[in-house]
Amino acid sequence: MDQPANDLIKLSTGNFTVEELEAIFSALPAEVSFVDKNDIVRFFSNKPDRLFLRGKGALGRDLRLCHPPRFQAVMQQIIGDFKSGKEDRVLFWRSSHKDKFISIEYIALRNENKEYLGTLEVVQDISDIRILEGDRQELVYTKKG
Amino acid sequence: MDQPANDLIKLSTGNFTVEELEAIFSALPAEVSFVDKNDIVRFFSNKPDRLFLRGKGALGRDLRLCHPPRFQAVMQQIIGDFKSGKEDRVLFWRSSHKDKFISIEYIALRNENKEYLGTLEVVQDISDIRILEGDRQELVYTKKG
Repeated sequence: MDQPANDLIKLSTGNFTVEELEAIFSALPAEVSFVDKNDIVRFFSNKPDRLFLRGKGALGRDLRLCHPPRFQAVMQQIIGDFKSGKEDRVLFWRSSHKDKFISIEYIALRNENKEYLGTLEVVQDISDIRILEGDRQELVYTKKG
Repeated sequence: MDQPANDLIKLSTGNFTVEELEAIFSALPAEVSFVDKNDIVRFFSNKPDRLFLRGKGALGRDLRLCHPPRFQAVMQQIIGDFKSGKEDRVLFWRSSHKDKFISIEYIALRNENKEYLGTLEVVQDISDIRILEGDRQELVYTKKG
């Protein structure tokens, strides 16, 4: 069951309703997925036109069931190094994924006591921001798409 | 009062605790700020080393009280065009902000009925991703900080 859309979620630096938080994740220029400290897929952002498709069927399942076999070993190593505290971030990139230049970043999530809480995957189409030059201060809207 | 850290927040594509959500926003490679449909500053992500400093004093205040006068007119126009439904996104960039190349994006937040919920500001240091070339498939951790 989803929470009521007007339930207020209070964080240390502000608050939002469930409906507002859903909209924030959908609008983010990057798509995120979250696996928790027990390697369970807990959340993916509901972004339109995702580069990496995610289905609700993955929610609540072990991370290892959601990646092709050829990624298993590297995913296990990353998660292991994050859990041990040895590493915090790793960046991959592909110059041609569905004709886009994309970055794929894995980031260790930790609480204030540095305890491991899980791993965030952040996938971003950087085709357009890669080629920015100079400055843009005037108001030019992005074409609707 | 902050919510208990283990309160479960349920969205349409997964769930997380308050503690996990705090960690997700802190880890995101972009810093975000949220103003609601009434132009009230409601949230900013608690990211370390923010490019644009945000203080808790801004929370609950009108957006107009939080920007230098020279940005007032353009902010008003953006918010107005987002509220009317005419526009959805605008991107600015600066090639040299504290020696970093940064992007500053404003994105209209809407619910499933296309009703305006507010505006998201996304600020990102793109210095490093701008200069990526080719592909990176092997595991190379990002240096700690």
